[in-house]
Amino acid sequence: MRMYDLITKKKHGEELSKEEISEMIRGYVNEEITDYQMSAMLMAIYFQGMSEKETANLTIAMAHSGDIVDLSAIKGIKVDKHSTGGVGDKTTLVIGPIVAACGGKVAKMSGRGLGHTGGTIDKLESIPGFQVALDQDKFIDIVNKVGISVVGQSGNLAPADKKLYALRDVTATVDSIPLISSSIMSKKLAAGSDCILLDVKTGSGAFMRTVEDSIALARRMVAIGEHAGKKTMAIITDMDIPLGSAVGNSLEVIEAIETLKGNGPKDLAEVCEILATNMLYLTGKGSVEKCKQLVHEAVESGAALKKLAEMVEAQGGDSTVILDTNKFAKAPYQYEVKVTQNGYISHMDTEQCGIASMVLGAGRETKDSVIDYSAGIRMIKKTGDYVKQGDVLAILYASKKELFQKAEEILRKAYTLSDEPVTRRPLVLAKVSSQGVEQY
Amino acid sequence: MRMYDLITKKKHGEELSKEEISEMIRGYVNEEITDYQMSAMLMAIYFQGMSEKETANLTIAMAHSGDIVDLSAIKGIKVDKHSTGGVGDKTTLVIGPIVAACGGKVAKMSGRGLGHTGGTIDKLESIPGFQVALDQDKFIDIVNKVGISVVGQSGNLAPADKKLYALRDVTATVDSIPLISSSIMSKKLAAGSDCILLDVKTGSGAFMRTVEDSIALARRMVAIGEHAGKKTMAIITDMDIPLGSAVGNSLEVIEAIETLKGNGPKDLAEVCEILATNMLYLTGKGSVEKCKQLVHEAVESGAALKKLAEMVEAQGGDSTVILDTNKFAKAPYQYEVKVTQNGYISHMDTEQCGIASMVLGAGRETKDSVIDYSAGIRMIKKTGDYVKQGDVLAILYASKKELFQKAEEILRKAYTLSDEPVTRRPLVLAKVSSQGVEQY
Repeated sequence: MRMYDLITKKKHGEELSKEEISEMIRGYVNEEITDYQMSAMLMAIYFQGMSEKETANLTIAMAHSGDIVDLSAIKGIKVDKHSTGGVGDKTTLVIGPIVAACGGKVAKMSGRGLGHTGGTIDKLESIPGFQVALDQDKFIDIVNKVGISVVGQSGNLAPADKKLYALRDVTATVDSIPLISSSIMSKKLAAGSDCILLDVKTGSGAFMRTVEDSIALARRMVAIGEHAGKKTMAIITDMDIPLGSAVGNSLEVIEAIETLKGNGPKDLAEVCEILATNMLYLTGKGSVEKCKQLVHEAVESGAALKKLAEMVEAQGGDSTVILDTNKFAKAPYQYEVKVTQNGYISHMDTEQCGIASMVLGAGRETKDSVIDYSAGIRMIKKTGDYVKQGDVLAILYASKKELFQKAEEILRKAYTLSDEPVTRRPLVLAKVSSQGVEQY
Repeated sequence: MRMYDLITKKKHGEELSKEEISEMIRGYVNEEITDYQMSAMLMAIYFQGMSEKETANLTIAMAHSGDIVDLSAIKGIKVDKHSTGGVGDKTTLVIGPIVAACGGKVAKMSGRGLGHTGGTIDKLESIPGFQVALDQDKFIDIVNKVGISVVGQSGNLAPADKKLYALRDVTATVDSIPLISSSIMSKKLAAGSDCILLDVKTGSGAFMRTVEDSIALARRMVAIGEHAGKKTMAIITDMDIPLGSAVGNSLEVIEAIETLKGNGPKDLAEVCEILATNMLYLTGKGSVEKCKQLVHEAVESGAALKKLAEMVEAQGGDSTVILDTNKFAKAPYQYEVKVTQNGYISHMDTEQCGIASMVLGAGRETKDSVIDYSAGIRMIKKTGDYVKQGDVLAILYASKKELFQKAEEILRKAYTLSDEPVTRRPLVLAKVSSQGVEQY
């Protein structure tokens, strides 16, 4: 096998065999194949695409380029969840405990935030004492005892993805469905769970801007998961407005806790309900209706909130903050952004909302940026709301007063007003499983 | 300007500006732009193409990446000629002297052969004593005195092309018309002549296999030349069979000499006539009809042959071999390939004929191979000929007997026989100038 011949094949739109793909990934990780040959291949894939079979083989080869986490010591069905990333997306903190409370096993590795999107690991680190770096035995032990543990990615997980992603990032080959789906799914396959629920975000704050593209990505990821023997399902959810009200690390943890108490924002509660229901469904807890019932009970009984507290405790965190969120460190400064014009909010550029929050210190502009856990935004008014001059549009939180001006400027531009009432689209737009696509 | 943004633009099919292209080439030669970004760009160009303007700007940037040969000390109109390469293509050795005999100035840098195609420099080196490495002053002095000098490429000519070609060669991005045309033309622009005649070969022994592709390449190269202020024209000639009878270095020089004496193979004489006529036409010697007349006179009077002898003499070679070709070193062994079946030769795989000659020692398998100047093939029967069992199909020449078997095997497979008479297509298929395409 010569890489030159594989590039030629792909360039001509031919299908690469399983052996060719696995040799290519092995050679690339071992530096037998150069970056310049791989980038030519990536661009050829951008133009010619890959079949479902090719994408699945690519993903499996990438997953096997490093360690495969062995979760066999965990009793029960392990279910993983992945979100393609958005603004205000704190669902893991809500649905993980719910699923664990209902008997599912959640052994989850999460990432950090970059740019306009946040990361679950950063959010958890805003809880005093919380440890995200656990050794494998401890991690498994917590999942067995509590039902859930969320840690940072560790070990040598899908190194091929790391290397390929770094190359795609500088060669303008990120936006390719086979490459995006194989990147996400290679890490999910390596993470070792039995079932995978994908939350594919769509809209102005998401990587996929249209429902059509999101469904295409979801279909491909579900096909990969099923091909690899994992029960896989994807829910397409709205990211045309920030999810919930809170954007920023401790602000989001507090909002997640409120949601587990039954007091969360309606949109967040609704998305969490459907995600948790389908995670449970994947673990075989019964019909969708039955699983939905279990989810309700877990919240109403307080069992889910208790699970979160147990996990925090088990990972070295101060679990008293869960019961009394006033114990979270507060941002020293806050600033109200006031409405200057009457009208209906017809659109929010959600990516810009995320960037405003990043500017306040809640996110990372570069990988080396330091996060201010208490910084962020509370969105008081969102798409569909009628606003009057003088209303509070949003509240900004920061440790330095001088950050407010730039953040306000960015945030204001994110809103579009209209004289006409606006109907928001549904929060959950479609469900993609091995059975097909169900659009709502 | 970030290379990432340029890749993105090209990926989306947008046009790159002159400044963007020249910055990109400058950055690549200076190693500010990496190979992996450039190979992604090359693959994007393969899929999205480049406009005529972009290609011209790319070519000019590549030409200016190194030295531009200054031929201003040569009096008269300097005319260059380039062949896209074929098997048995010894036209430079015939038409260069003809054009010089008619008053055109030919200051030509030529290349060496690789694979199935030969190179003019190798052919000239089969003349005892002939020097292909001359310093610039000597080169210009010979052109001024004799009217023609042919030397190897020297100096730092279009280093961007050298670097880009090496990358294209390993990333499967050679076969792109904007990239092929800019590669050829950047060297022609840097070589400093006033006019350029392109001989674009088409068929089984050429890089371009179809007339359509050859015309597309020719149009693009003519557009580049004209954009850069050079009178440029292209002739599309047949390379579906080897040109003339001789393939191999001294064999081809001898055939070129015979052609200058008026005794050459009909096909070679015809192609040389049209190429020489149009080179002269480009230098402004009058109408095409008038130039054709001058070409005839130069051959008939012996003036062209005398020019070849003068050039050989001026470049240190033994010019007596020109008058008595028996003085060329002979291959110690020769072998007749006999016809085994009656029929019409309906097709010759010309690339394979070139490979058979290479196997005999006449060509280079790799850049480091050593050439045997006396080795090669004389094609006795060619496409269109009726052959009978026992006829001599071809004569092989080599310095080692053991080379014959493999070469014969390759050569035999190159012929296709038919029971029906076969009509050969015209030798000259089209002419492409700034006026448009004239197909024959």
